[in-house]
Amino acid sequence: MTAQATRVLVLNGPNLGRLGGRDPDVYGSTTHEELVALCVRGGADLGLDVEVRQSEHEGELISWLHEAADGGIAVVLNAGALTHTSLTVGDACAILGAPLVAVHLSNIFARESFRHRSYVSAHAVGVIVGFGVEGYVLALSWLSAHSGSVDAP
Amino acid sequence: MTAQATRVLVLNGPNLGRLGGRDPDVYGSTTHEELVALCVRGGADLGLDVEVRQSEHEGELISWLHEAADGGIAVVLNAGALTHTSLTVGDACAILGAPLVAVHLSNIFARESFRHRSYVSAHAVGVIVGFGVEGYVLALSWLSAHSGSVDAP
Amino acid sequence: MTAQATRVLVLNGPNLGRLGGRDPDVYGSTTHEELVALCVRGGADLGLDVEVRQSEHEGELISWLHEAADGGIAVVLNAGALTHTSLTVGDACAILGAPLVAVHLSNIFARESFRHRSYVSAHAVGVIVGFGVEGYVLALSWLSAHSGSVDAP
Amino acid sequence: MTAQATRVLVLNGPNLGRLGGRDPDVYGSTTHEELVALCVRGGADLGLDVEVRQSEHEGELISWLHEAADGGIAVVLNAGALTHTSLTVGDACAILGAPLVAVHLSNIFARESFRHRSYVSAHAVGVIVGFGVEGYVLALSWLSAHSGSVDAP
Amino acid sequence: MTAQATRVLVLNGPNLGRLGGRDPDVYGSTTHEELVALCVRGGADLGLDVEVRQSEHEGELISWLHEAADGGIAVVLNAGALTHTSLTVGDACAILGAPLVAVHLSNIFARESFRHRSYVSAHAVGVIVGFGVEGYVLALSWLSAHSGSVDAP
Amino acid sequence: MTAQATRVLVLNGPNLGRLGGRDPDVYGSTTHEELVALCVRGGADLGLDVEVRQSEHEGELISWLHEAADGGIAVVLNAGALTHTSLTVGDACAILGAPLVAVHLSNIFARESFRHRSYVSAHAVGVIVGFGVEGYVLALSWLSAHSGSVDAP
Amino acid sequence: MTAQATRVLVLNGPNLGRLGGRDPDVYGSTTHEELVALCVRGGADLGLDVEVRQSEHEGELISWLHEAADGGIAVVLNAGALTHTSLTVGDACAILGAPLVAVHLSNIFARESFRHRSYVSAHAVGVIVGFGVEGYVLALSWLSAHSGSVDAP
Amino acid sequence: MTAQATRVLVLNGPNLGRLGGRDPDVYGSTTHEELVALCVRGGADLGLDVEVRQSEHEGELISWLHEAADGGIAVVLNAGALTHTSLTVGDACAILGAPLVAVHLSNIFARESFRHRSYVSAHAVGVIVGFGVEGYVLALSWLSAHSGSVDAP
Amino acid sequence: MTAQATRVLVLNGPNLGRLGGRDPDVYGSTTHEELVALCVRGGADLGLDVEVRQSEHEGELISWLHEAADGGIAVVLNAGALTHTSLTVGDACAILGAPLVAVHLSNIFARESFRHRSYVSAHAVGVIVGFGVEGYVLALSWLSAHSGSVDAP
Amino acid sequence: MTAQATRVLVLNGPNLGRLGGRDPDVYGSTTHEELVALCVRGGADLGLDVEVRQSEHEGELISWLHEAADGGIAVVLNAGALTHTSLTVGDACAILGAPLVAVHLSNIFARESFRHRSYVSAHAVGVIVGFGVEGYVLALSWLSAHSGSVDAP
Amino acid sequence: MTAQATRVLVLNGPNLGRLGGRDPDVYGSTTHEELVALCVRGGADLGLDVEVRQSEHEGELISWLHEAADGGIAVVLNAGALTHTSLTVGDACAILGAPLVAVHLSNIFARESFRHRSYVSAHAVGVIVGFGVEGYVLALSWLSAHSGSVDAP
Amino acid sequence: MTAQATRVLVLNGPNLGRLGGRDPDVYGSTTHEELVALCVRGGADLGLDVEVRQSEHEGELISWLHEAADGGIAVVLNAGALTHTSLTVGDACAILGAPLVAVHLSNIFARESFRHRSYVSAHAVGVIVGFGVEGYVLALSWLSAHSGSVDAP
Repeated sequence: MTAQATRVLVLNGPNLGRLGGRDPDVYGSTTHEELVALCVRGGADLGLDVEVRQSEHEGELISWLHEAADGGIAVVLNAGALTHTSLTVGDACAILGAPLVAVHLSNIFARESFRHRSYVSAHAVGVIVGFGVEGYVLALSWLSAHSGSVDAP
Repeated sequence: MTAQATRVLVLNGPNLGRLGGRDPDVYGSTTHEELVALCVRGGADLGLDVEVRQSEHEGELISWLHEAADGGIAVVLNAGALTHTSLTVGDACAILGAPLVAVHLSNIFARESFRHRSYVSAHAVGVIVGFGVEGYVLALSWLSAHSGSVDAP
Repeated sequence: MTAQATRVLVLNGPNLGRLGGRDPDVYGSTTHEELVALCVRGGADLGLDVEVRQSEHEGELISWLHEAADGGIAVVLNAGALTHTSLTVGDACAILGAPLVAVHLSNIFARESFRHRSYVSAHAVGVIVGFGVEGYVLALSWLSAHSGSVDAP
Repeated sequence: MTAQATRVLVLNGPNLGRLGGRDPDVYGSTTHEELVALCVRGGADLGLDVEVRQSEHEGELISWLHEAADGGIAVVLNAGALTHTSLTVGDACAILGAPLVAVHLSNIFARESFRHRSYVSAHAVGVIVGFGVEGYVLALSWLSAHSGSVDAP
Repeated sequence: MTAQATRVLVLNGPNLGRLGGRDPDVYGSTTHEELVALCVRGGADLGLDVEVRQSEHEGELISWLHEAADGGIAVVLNAGALTHTSLTVGDACAILGAPLVAVHLSNIFARESFRHRSYVSAHAVGVIVGFGVEGYVLALSWLSAHSGSVDAP
Repeated sequence: MTAQATRVLVLNGPNLGRLGGRDPDVYGSTTHEELVALCVRGGADLGLDVEVRQSEHEGELISWLHEAADGGIAVVLNAGALTHTSLTVGDACAILGAPLVAVHLSNIFARESFRHRSYVSAHAVGVIVGFGVEGYVLALSWLSAHSGSVDAP
Repeated sequence: MTAQATRVLVLNGPNLGRLGGRDPDVYGSTTHEELVALCVRGGADLGLDVEVRQSEHEGELISWLHEAADGGIAVVLNAGALTHTSLTVGDACAILGAPLVAVHLSNIFARESFRHRSYVSAHAVGVIVGFGVEGYVLALSWLSAHSGSVDAP
Repeated sequence: MTAQATRVLVLNGPNLGRLGGRDPDVYGSTTHEELVALCVRGGADLGLDVEVRQSEHEGELISWLHEAADGGIAVVLNAGALTHTSLTVGDACAILGAPLVAVHLSNIFARESFRHRSYVSAHAVGVIVGFGVEGYVLALSWLSAHSGSVDAP
Repeated sequence: MTAQATRVLVLNGPNLGRLGGRDPDVYGSTTHEELVALCVRGGADLGLDVEVRQSEHEGELISWLHEAADGGIAVVLNAGALTHTSLTVGDACAILGAPLVAVHLSNIFARESFRHRSYVSAHAVGVIVGFGVEGYVLALSWLSAHSGSVDAP
Repeated sequence: MTAQATRVLVLNGPNLGRLGGRDPDVYGSTTHEELVALCVRGGADLGLDVEVRQSEHEGELISWLHEAADGGIAVVLNAGALTHTSLTVGDACAILGAPLVAVHLSNIFARESFRHRSYVSAHAVGVIVGFGVEGYVLALSWLSAHSGSVDAP
Repeated sequence: MTAQATRVLVLNGPNLGRLGGRDPDVYGSTTHEELVALCVRGGADLGLDVEVRQSEHEGELISWLHEAADGGIAVVLNAGALTHTSLTVGDACAILGAPLVAVHLSNIFARESFRHRSYVSAHAVGVIVGFGVEGYVLALSWLSAHSGSVDAP
Repeated sequence: MTAQATRVLVLNGPNLGRLGGRDPDVYGSTTHEELVALCVRGGADLGLDVEVRQSEHEGELISWLHEAADGGIAVVLNAGALTHTSLTVGDACAILGAPLVAVHLSNIFARESFRHRSYVSAHAVGVIVGFGVEGYVLALSWLSAHSGSVDAP
């Protein structure tokens, strides 16, 4: 990975730090630490400089989205349950200049109906749902293929 | 109270630190400090090691719920208005291993309809509504009677 | 128990006579006879004169509520499925002069959405949900602590 | 400005620190720094001691509202997207003793329907919508005219 | 009153036996006994042979409606809260051959929205709402004027 | 009729001038002229000074309601279809000082659901539905019995 | 019919005793007495010991369902309008051990929408709608073919 | 079977050719070929000339319904999931001259709510739900009993 | 005030002529005459040529809005209850060329939900809610500051 | 045009007098005067005696519809926004004896959803939507072809 | 008709081949063959080269719409019940380059509410509803007048 | 590509054959032929034997899904608008034995709300939304990585 590697912020929302321990039938057995390693290493292979952050705080997620907006940095966002309830996170996504890809570990369409609504999706280039931690890699591979040339919607 | 006393976390959400001053017709005149004393002392009488925490931050509540999940600690939760809006707190409740009892000071069923929905209740063993600060004591007395033997739902 | 013991009517609605035999995963294995004994004995220990009645007939429940209204007797009410459909029982609750506590054996919030609506709750001092037959004891212990001094809402 | 100047807290919610850069067609080109100066200077001209704060954190907004409640300080609140989703902020507004004026930069009634609901408005003396940063000045001028004599609703 | 006086059944549903004692602001201070006297005497003045019955039992009301259907007897019905919830009472009204007049003591349109729906009204000639016990007299005066000549709808 | 006769305004809304010709199955065959005569004569018999007016214009109805409010005159109102759609007429009813009785010729509860909503009913003492032109006479007889002694709700 | 004939309870709810006289276009001209004879005789031909009961009382229906549950007796249930409103009857159906078949005389799907909801259907093996009294015979013939071998759902 | 046998078309919609292999817990283990044999043979026993067809194409089902309309042929229809979504199939059913019986293999009332709506039912004589392939036989036995004498609704 | 003063039409809808007398708790004690004087004088101080009109007639309001559209005149509109029901007034607002400011005397967000909908707001530059008659002055001060330079939205 | 020419009233509702000037992208550039000429001349060519009227007043439209009802005159009605909100205009349409054709200039189905509802359409022979002023000519050509022979629905 | 005649495809959806035989009260007595002749002949008179096709298959309709899109051919579409349910047909309409006119034989606004929704209308220049087969001729006459000069919306 | 290459069916629904020509802003400029080539070649690179089919017919899609079910073949499905309306396609997806990945070219979450519902998603392993034709490649790369080891949900 050279210094010119495109930067990508992978932002995970509340409860995602519990991966592996939390309801493995729904979310898989990979821990958040392993997810970080997977994204950083997989990103490096794709020529991306990936940083993964996680927070229980809606406000911290919003500040990180502002940071991405200021730096023109692409974002892979899994806002957890805030996806479905936080208009505030949605408004922060609307400010981004570089592409946003939304990722969900589980197939939210096969779960409760209140998980079908998203304040994030309308501001994303695309959404990847249900592939577990591999969804992050699919998102990164798309960002890698379009680095430097894709405008946010 | 001996060292073997079962631990219980009593977690109070936003605006509950204002008890006593806030709308006494609805919430009673007991202050949060008095509520803390009531729970700790009442818990000790029941053989429980009770710790009471309060936060205006959803994220902090979630971290405390994670702490309870890690430690297998029983929880009495009054999430305040987040009960009705925070799917994120609900998801954190779903991770708990020890019993969760939900408490509401006021009779939410006699208030606005948006206070009838709960993201917490479905993950609780039971819910106690409308008995003011005495609801916490009822919750603790149930936990005391079942300490060591009750699985979370 | 002395003659001065405060009277409490515990009123159980349709299908509750089937306790123990009916869907034990949801309602527990205690029979209605055992529930009666638990309430009477537990009430006596708390200085209460408890009488338990059960009926499949909405009209009979209403008459008993009128009897409680006439006598100024406190009521613990588990109206069963009528809780969710009977405006008539709700109107009878509204007439009560002494405190009413509503009890549900199962956690109705984790069940079908048509069990979330209640015509009873708004007229109760408080509601106790999900603790099985122990919910009756919690209700009685609260009534015992407030006998003589609590007005109905 | 003398020491007797009436204090006013102007509280701005999530994403409002991005003013100027964010979607200028909707929110105008004034930056948050310029908004602060406008309010402080405009307030001083009206005999008000204005302090402007902004936070991405719902919890911090709530603490500031508690501070205003403790000090009996008038509030001009633009809760951003939390206006439409946060019952918790609404409950904190309900505790205020001095007047609350709600302000929205954009005409929310000409935007998405989920921006038409407000948990804040019902607790405000009045609401000013769509006049951009000048809305804050209108709010301050009303507060100035009524300082010392207006009760919160 | 001669033997040829037209018969009218005045049927009152659950909780109406509590008139006078129950919430006098809403229902007035006349007792059910006084209502019976008012209807019987008022009916006699109008040349009607009025019988008033009251029951807490939906099934009993239905049997009385069947009796009216068999005898071709006009009915004044105040089904109480069953008006709003009992499709079964509504179906029994549909069988009547002689005119049905529905009466409500209170102005149900100024009360909770679940009191606006009626399973009875569509089967009635007309509905009289909000005039307290005088509504029964208005209903009887109309029936008197049309005895012998009006078909049910 | 003496000069002391209580004044009553009978106000009929749009399309009611077409009575008799319009859909006689629904509205009866009495013409508006006959309705006027019936009300004036019937009112006189009851000691009332009745004036009947009809307009196709919502604004004119409102002015007449203002006139009644200024004069403390009782009103019998059949606002026609405006009953179901005009919040403006409803607000004018709310200003009245003397009793308001709402009348509908047809049984609106047996018709389209958009005729079940009323902006008028909540401001009326009572509502009389489905008795055709006789409903006006029932309304007048009630007003006659209470002239001088009944406050508006 | 030998003593070993399988027992079946045919339970009919409110208003069904009026068959034949009530709205023959909808429900047919067979009387309830003829329905009883049809079921008993038809059942005997199929080797079933059929008993038919009818009640206007929800509570009585529930008691009969409990009797069937205790005896492991198959049930053919036409709960009349209670099908659509009584969660209580639905809960009683859920307790049954032997098969339940739901029957409706009329094609409820061609009638008002409030007759499309059923609290009974989900607990039945199957539902037979619209074939008039012959629907009972179809139900009995299915029960006969499966007597001794079919579990309730 | 003689030439005079009444003709019946049994029409099965999309996915019903997969019977036996598809989700046997819901639909049973009988294959479509066995269903065809059951209907043809069972029909012959009842004096009916039964032809069974199946198609994945809505258009083909409609053409077959037209064919039945032209020939005055009775129809047993299981339109599969089209029952719940195809207004077009419903309109084709409305044209039929001979009786239509609707059949569902599974108890659709115990499944997802979008399977409760039917565009077919209102045009059928009756509906048979939840008896698996035996439902077809019940339908045929009813048609057999009424061949020659029953008008479509 | 010179001849060059910018013209502003202040248009008040139905029932607003009753100000002062009507429900002073909600609308304040200022009369419409005083409101006129306040607007004309306050406008003159701000260099505006203000004319105030009031009508009970929707059609007249629409004609005045057309007049404003023809003259390019700014409008302050309080359409009263028509705000919430009149799409026709809303369409007339959409034609305006100069700025429109919507004003409500009371805090409509703290009242019935049918007062939350507005057909006017989306066509306004901004909306001022809840400040009583002072809301008009706030509206005029904004128009004054922007006279000559602001386009309608 | 001879004296025997069939009379047609073309009635235009609120805001339609602004045609040409108002939002030409939606409504076209033809003025109302040109529309009048087009209808009168086009009608004459078709042997119709066409009169065009326009009003901002719902009440005036209703009076004109009454006039048409009295004269048995065919009507082409474009009620503007009243189409979607005025049950009163709809009721006036229901009284018409000669055919009514409803016309909309713009394609209301491609606009806001509150423009999809119509109180007029159900009373019309047919509806013509989206063809601008030519829609009136299409309506007149249909009326011309059916003058003398078509009953209103 | 010369070779230069503008081509128009008239496309009829499911069940429309049954015209004349199907429910003549709703759809008229003209057969589809007569409709074809009417359109072809009427089109020729207007200088149009009209081809009429009908299919029960949604897929075939879509292919024909693609053919029209490829050829830039104007379309008159009566998609039958697919109008109300087929988003797929709606998407195919959106691709058309030449004008689309939607036609309905019956007045769908006077029928069931599920016939009020249309996936086609928003993509059409205009919609003609309720004039029976003459609606096609009105559509063709409009297309004739605009052939060569009108863009699709 | 060897004979052992895992087979994958890529199935495209109605209107997808128009790719490139249809609304390029939404769906991109790649034609369906290019999409076929992209999938076949990209699949071969990933060791997959990919076959791409497209149909306007729901019935044909269903047959292809049955073929995949019989062969245990993985499917990438873009059902076009049928995704949102066809319960029948959804039921066919439920029968599949090998993994199903759902793909949408455009970001359906940023489009009309009726495109947010999916009958397909709940039966898929995952869903990929908004990445245009590259979404197919992402789907194939996931299938390649899991060929031989992943069970359908």
